[in-house]
Formats: sequence, C-alpha cells, structure tokens
Amino acid sequence: VAKVIADSLSYEVLCLLRDHGPLSRAELADRLAIPRARLLGELTRLAGAGRVIEAGPAASRGGRRSTLIELDAQLRLGAVDLGATSVRVEVVNGRLEMIDAVEEPIDVRLGPRPVLGRIGEMLGKLAAQGSHTRLDGIGLGLPGPVRFEAGVPVSPPLMPGWDGFGVRELLAHEQGCPVVVDNDVNIMAIGEGYSGVARSVPDFLFVKLGTGIGCGVHLVGEVHRGKDGSAGDIGHIQVEPTGPVCACGNVGCLEAVFGGAALARDALAAARTGRSPWLARRLVEIGAVDARHVGEAAAAGDPTAMALIRDGGRRLGTVLAGLVSFANPSMIVIGGGLAQLGHRLLAEVRAAVYGRSLPLATGNLPIVLSELGDRAGVIGAAKLASDVVFRQA
Amino acid sequence: VAKVIADSLSYEVLCLLRDHGPLSRAELADRLAIPRARLLGELTRLAGAGRVIEAGPAASRGGRRSTLIELDAQLRLGAVDLGATSVRVEVVNGRLEMIDAVEEPIDVRLGPRPVLGRIGEMLGKLAAQGSHTRLDGIGLGLPGPVRFEAGVPVSPPLMPGWDGFGVRELLAHEQGCPVVVDNDVNIMAIGEGYSGVARSVPDFLFVKLGTGIGCGVHLVGEVHRGKDGSAGDIGHIQVEPTGPVCACGNVGCLEAVFGGAALARDALAAARTGRSPWLARRLVEIGAVDARHVGEAAAAGDPTAMALIRDGGRRLGTVLAGLVSFANPSMIVIGGGLAQLGHRLLAEVRAAVYGRSLPLATGNLPIVLSELGDRAGVIGAAKLASDVVFRQA
Repeated sequence: VAKVIADSLSYEVLCLLRDHGPLSRAELADRLAIPRARLLGELTRLAGAGRVIEAGPAASRGGRRSTLIELDAQLRLGAVDLGATSVRVEVVNGRLEMIDAVEEPIDVRLGPRPVLGRIGEMLGKLAAQGSHTRLDGIGLGLPGPVRFEAGVPVSPPLMPGWDGFGVRELLAHEQGCPVVVDNDVNIMAIGEGYSGVARSVPDFLFVKLGTGIGCGVHLVGEVHRGKDGSAGDIGHIQVEPTGPVCACGNVGCLEAVFGGAALARDALAAARTGRSPWLARRLVEIGAVDARHVGEAAAAGDPTAMALIRDGGRRLGTVLAGLVSFANPSMIVIGGGLAQLGHRLLAEVRAAVYGRSLPLATGNLPIVLSELGDRAGVIGAAKLASDVVFRQA
Repeated sequence: VAKVIADSLSYEVLCLLRDHGPLSRAELADRLAIPRARLLGELTRLAGAGRVIEAGPAASRGGRRSTLIELDAQLRLGAVDLGATSVRVEVVNGRLEMIDAVEEPIDVRLGPRPVLGRIGEMLGKLAAQGSHTRLDGIGLGLPGPVRFEAGVPVSPPLMPGWDGFGVRELLAHEQGCPVVVDNDVNIMAIGEGYSGVARSVPDFLFVKLGTGIGCGVHLVGEVHRGKDGSAGDIGHIQVEPTGPVCACGNVGCLEAVFGGAALARDALAAARTGRSPWLARRLVEIGAVDARHVGEAAAAGDPTAMALIRDGGRRLGTVLAGLVSFANPSMIVIGGGLAQLGHRLLAEVRAAVYGRSLPLATGNLPIVLSELGDRAGVIGAAKLASDVVFRQA
C-alpha cells in the first residue's frame, strides 16, 4: 500500500498539470489533500527529473503568494494511429497539444519491420522540422487485437506477419523511450473519452465504422480490453443467420452486411445492375464506387443508396441494442470513416436501439457522432503514452 | 490521496483477515508493505472498534514470536437472497461462514413493506435460535434492477410497488446497521467470483437461468452495474425477429423463447398435443408440467424434450457468442434453477459459442456450471455487506 501511494503521488501531480494546465502549489496541495511540505518535496524531485517547472507567481488568493507549477515545456510524446492503409503520426507536448503532424498512406501488410521503420522515419522527419529533440514516450494504435501488457499484436486478421511480434520492444529500443501499444479502436475511444464528446461520462461505447466494424468498451473510466485483448470485436456478431459468408468464415456477421467493405460491395452491385442510376453514372465516370459514394448518392436522393444506409443502420442498431441491454452504458459514440454517413445513419441506429432496448437503459442514452474525427486515435495514443510516462516519473 | 489511503488501510487489514483467516502481525505488515509501528496503531484502533482480536502466538518464523490477529468472533452479517417467489436468509461470521439459515416461499408482489417485514422476522427468528445478538451489516439481493449507490429498485418488472422504494434506508433503520442492496444476479456473480468456480478469474459472465434470464457482468474484479443498474439484462436481447411476443412487449426476446417460463409454456404445449408422450403422461399424473419436467423427460430419452433443451441452448449460446466477442471474458458460469438441465444444455451452449465466436476469444474460454448452486446469492450478499462494514471500520 505505502509503496503504491508514494508512486502514485507524482503521477497524480503530473496528471493534474496535464488536464488543468498550470496550477499553484497551494491548489495542488488542496486537490491532492496532502501537506504542503510533502508536495514541495515531490515537486523538487519532479523538477530535478525534468518533468515540471516553475511558471512564475500565481494570482493571489489572499495571504502569501503561491508559485505556479506547470509541465516542463520540453516534454514531448509521439502519438501514432496506424490503420490498415494509412498512418498518422503526431508529436504533442505534455498537455497533449499538437506540435506537428504527418499522415501518409501505408500498407500494413508489408509487415512489422518495414512499417515500424517507416514510422521511425516519420518521427525523424518531424524532429527535423523542429517538433522535438527527443521523445519522452510513444503511444501506438494498431488495427488488430493487442495483448496490452506485452505490447504485442495477437492473431490480427488484417496484419499478416505481425502475430506475436514484439512491437513495443522494437519501437522502445529504436526510439529510446517507453512505448505503449493498443488496438486502434481502443485509442479512439480513449481519445473521445479524454477530450471528445464522451469526456464527461465514465461508461460509453465507441463504435468505429471503417472498412470493418469495431467497438471501444469504455467502462468505469477505462478501456476494457478483455482476457486476450479482443474485447469490442463486434463486427463478427451474427445479425443474419442466413446472410452472406464473412471473411472470418462464419455466416451473417455484422461486418459481412455493413461497414465500408460491405457497402462498397453493395454499391458496386447496385451500380452494375442499374438499381441505382446515381451509382451507375458514377461507376461510368470514375471506374469505381465505394462506401463514400453511397453517402453522396443518398444525399442526392438516390433510393437504393438510402435503403443501403437504412438497412445497415438497422442491423448495427440491433447489435447495439443487445449491447445496451448487456452493458447499460451512459453514451454511444459513432466514429470512423463511415460516420460521414451522418444523421441518416444515426436516425436508423437510434430507431433500432430505442425500439429494442428496455426503457430503463435507453431513457437517457445519447447516441451521437464522434467529435474528434480522425484525430480521436492520436489523442488517445498520446493520452496512453502520457499515463505511462507519468507513472514512471 | 492521503485521506483515501488512511481509510483504505483498515479496510485492507480486515479483507486480508476475512479472505485468509488469522494472520500474524508480521505477515500483515509484510502483505501491506507498511511499517510495523503503523500496523500496530491500526490494529489497536480496530480492536477498540470491536473488529479484530488477538488469537495467541503465531508459529515462529525465526526471531521474535509474532501474535496472530483474527476478525472478532462476534462479527455477524445478514445475507438475504430475495427471489420472485422465495427468500433465503443467512447469518454469517466475518469470514462469511454460515452460522444459521432459513428459507421460505414469499410473494415479492406483496410489496416492499410486507416483504421486508417478513425478512426482519426471519432475521429475528435466527437471532432467537442464537445466531447473533446484533448484526454489523446486511447484504440484500432483489430480483430487479437496483440503483446501487442509493439502494433503491428502479422499474423492476416483477416487483409492483417497489419502484423507487427506499429499501436500504428502511432496512438500515429497522435493523440498526449498514445495508447494501443489489440485483439478485449480481450477488450470485459476486458469490461465484468470491468463493465459487470463478474465484481465480477477474473477468467472467455469470448467466442465471431461472424463470427469466439475467447476466452478472463481472469485469476487472468487480460487478459492472451500468448507468441505471440494468447491465446484464440479456433476457431481452432479440434472438428471433419473427419470434413470440415477450412479456416486455418486444418480439423474439431470448426470455420469450428460453428460460423457465418459456420452457414451462412449451412443455405444456408438447404435453397437450401429445408431441411428448412423457410430458403428456406427467400432465395426466400431476395436472401440470414445467421446466423441471422437461429436464426429466430429456433424461428419460424423450425426443421432444431433448429438442427443447437443444433449441434453447443454441439460442442462449448465440447470444453469449455475441457477448464473448464484445467482452472477451475469461469464463462463463451458468447458474440458476435451470442449470439443473446440466450437461445437455451446456453442450449446446458450448457448441454455439465456440462455433460463432472468433478463435482468439474462445481458444481458452471455459463454459461451466455454477459451483455454489443456491448459495451463490447469499455468499455474494454477505461479501458485499462485509465490504461495506469493513470500509466503515
């Protein structure tokens, strides 16, 4: 007990400065409910370790002036959101404010060494542009299940060659700082919970609608990762016992009937058969149609495209209704690329969830779109990295 | 921080003595990683409060003999498992060992005052038999959603007159001790996690198959109750879009096709139409058939009864497969009256879960029957009560 407490005090100090900005010594001592002498000792230690600095006198609260403390301005964290086909790399300061960012296409199937090498180069490029001289920690999200404690992907279906690879170890070795690795949907949920639409609720589900469909299960203020790191894998819940065969080999998975890949397939069929004149025209014009075009077609009033979104939303809503009965969350956040389908999709999801779940669980359940958009992941990755760095302070 | 720590030390001491039995002062100081002087002060305080006693010298570990400390032998907790049609009341000691128990039929629809009054009389009867002179705390499980912090049932469908009733307040006032109130499935999950089959895993689902179907969602060592206390309400997840109308008004809920009430309905139909000769005979002999008779008929080789169990198990398994994808638990425990259907049911549930979920999540997922049977609830209620009492020490 005593050891845990001593360790956690510096962590608490650093988190307060991250989340609230500069605070006076008096405010810190008050919020932590510890004697001022104990706090001063801790601050001296943290200043020596290059974690905090004095930032001049605080505004007077009456009595003796207190000194403002803030996170060291040189603190730098790397935040990486690696998707199946693109990667976003940011460098942020201790308050998780973006210093510089770079994003580019990447093929995760090239395997861990080339991909992690490229991420290293991108961090180097940001350093050359002046974002940092060294990093204090890195957070990285991967598009597959991750054994969180080990920082190792486990049987990731989209990532051949990554299974069991020591991602955290390699990156920590090459960058010379602590690294934390998590699933890409989990970091988006953490980001949205830290500074997005879910920042005021402890329990929420973050649904990522991308090529596939995943869910961040954020309960009691933390992401729930499950025994094997595969919690939230809702894309393979059965919604159609007689439905299409999924890439996973089962029949009628949610992902087999909705999500970016399924919508692209359905859009192409609707274009080829001429069921959707709008999509057929688009196919002729640009030689391809995908999920984004379904959204555009629906916005233009195309009935087939509207039906695709309606059916998909209803299926997703039916799955979410079951999860609401099970988890009784305070909020559902919809993010990922397909969230661009917007309010048309939201209306269907809401109708299905509110219609299917018991009134007690849905009486006051907001179902809303992500606020952070494509920055949710890097913000979550930066938050995770800061937690690790602050715990080691 | 400092305040929380001081409060939690006495709690940690008492929990160690509850879970491990008598420990020497040296062992306690070691396990808590605190200086011996600090522990001695705390023990003096706890002895003064009537919580712990000295129990003679400990076996020597070399060097000076240490003194054994144990929970005060007079500590008494009441544990109440209130179902829709019966109530079990136990009095246990600080180690949650049963001192005396009484169980009787009750109709929860009589409303809170008569039912809580009867529970008070049962506790009085146990006192008269010598179980206790006073209670230090009471844990109570109710068959409906409970707003846990307030100890108040919320819209419980089986409990007319209980909605919003101050159960905890009334019972605490009448019995003169702290009371904690929770959902009946949650206390069974807590019991099974404390000393049953799930005692070694932090994350598991406890499925209660009774008249209805509910689930205890035990994650990260705690029951997850959800925003409104309705988490785990899996009986109303849709399994049959064109299925029978449920008591809740929706169509095709799990509870509408499986569980004690649905099986009783199907058994009666199978008996009346003669589709099951075994059940038809039973109906003639005793004038009624219910879920238990389906189990007996299946054991006797009746094909219709076997099909009922198979279909029900498959439906339950399909729901659980989705929840496994979502929560990635370490174990699933099946309890409640219908768990008596035993291995025939278990086989179907396993086939559905292992067949439908992704290999990563089910590779090492035991699906097992409850070990504590009808004592799971009272053990969980006693555990909850001890947590509250020890926190207030």
